[in-house]
Amino acid sequence: MAANIKYLGQKAAQLVDVDLMSKHGYAIEQLMELAGFSVAQSIAKEYPAGKVLLCIGPGNNGGDGLVAARHLKHFGYKTSLYYPVQPAKDLYKNLLHQCDIHHIPVVTDLTTEAKSSDLIVDAIFGFSFKGSVRAPFDQALDILRGVNTPIVSVDIPSGWDVEHGDVQGVGLRPDMLVSLTVPKLCAKQFNGRFHYLGGRFVPPDMAEELKVPKYPGTDQCVRLA
Amino acid sequence: MAANIKYLGQKAAQLVDVDLMSKHGYAIEQLMELAGFSVAQSIAKEYPAGKVLLCIGPGNNGGDGLVAARHLKHFGYKTSLYYPVQPAKDLYKNLLHQCDIHHIPVVTDLTTEAKSSDLIVDAIFGFSFKGSVRAPFDQALDILRGVNTPIVSVDIPSGWDVEHGDVQGVGLRPDMLVSLTVPKLCAKQFNGRFHYLGGRFVPPDMAEELKVPKYPGTDQCVRLA
Repeated sequence: MAANIKYLGQKAAQLVDVDLMSKHGYAIEQLMELAGFSVAQSIAKEYPAGKVLLCIGPGNNGGDGLVAARHLKHFGYKTSLYYPVQPAKDLYKNLLHQCDIHHIPVVTDLTTEAKSSDLIVDAIFGFSFKGSVRAPFDQALDILRGVNTPIVSVDIPSGWDVEHGDVQGVGLRPDMLVSLTVPKLCAKQFNGRFHYLGGRFVPPDMAEELKVPKYPGTDQCVRLA
Repeated sequence: MAANIKYLGQKAAQLVDVDLMSKHGYAIEQLMELAGFSVAQSIAKEYPAGKVLLCIGPGNNGGDGLVAARHLKHFGYKTSLYYPVQPAKDLYKNLLHQCDIHHIPVVTDLTTEAKSSDLIVDAIFGFSFKGSVRAPFDQALDILRGVNTPIVSVDIPSGWDVEHGDVQGVGLRPDMLVSLTVPKLCAKQFNGRFHYLGGRFVPPDMAEELKVPKYPGTDQCVRLA
């Protein structure tokens, strides 16, 4: 665990998000682009080019995953999407269309695809997750837990409580966690190999208050542990 | 001049832009974020941290400049804006507000500011420019031409014809040119020290057709010459 890092609870994380968009005037497309890019860059720092399966949830965490898939493709990775619940919102439809234009296929046989990939990105649930995992994601998480392919979780290991970690015993144990904006409390219980932070868009006053660490050079991600 | 590079005319450049947004479903906020970031990263590759004055025009070229200003600030540069014509469009208002939140001041005394800066970013006119330079930008370009501070032009050296270069004798001679998406024809006449390309969002089929060069690693810019 990195020193001097602040960990946010669920409510505080939601307030930070609201502030970025309402008070600081960011468009969701900007934040998602930079967040998804930072996930892709974190992956490129630790895993060689190969086959990456991105598991996409129905909300903003999934949106970050769609952006990451596109950038990973640009970086030379072979990427595919598992995206069983596709909301009708223009934001997500456009991001999916961009993936399509980049020849990133949507797959349905999760077991086969998970086994044949070199890396899995878990972009299913983010910091808004509450309650228990519902279909079809309960089964999906069962499958991800059952394969040996290393997992990169975006912001929150899916199924984990945002503050208390894996209290429901979902059992996902990611190899890498890419926290976004500021780590959430559950990140304290992450014990995989790589903990990164992404989302280099926090304005200076907010960054000071939230103890956001310094990013090196022009990197959009920084390793925390 | 780099080998195997395609240079676009004004109409072709406009069609590429339309395709990216209508056919490929990109939001202007996404494209501008990645384009502006690539300008900031190109600068960081060649110029040490210092004081950068960004001259912002009234259109999308100016928007790229506003985004670049924010990222340069994150990279440790001291940045200020000269932004004499501020359109009422939400897109630009939000980008300016983000600069404000990042404590990037808007200055009015261009001569003093240009002389006391280590670098000037010319984000005044882009690939839509036609005709002659109108007030207050005619005077602004006179001032920029008259100082010794090196200039980085975004996509098009302002006042140059997009296809034929400095046919009006405006006289801007940038030290760096950051072409966006694909170089425009006037870039053939650029003879400053650094020619970069940014805007790593062109989908593969379009990239092949437009002969977009390969970007290294996770970089959002590539040096052409």
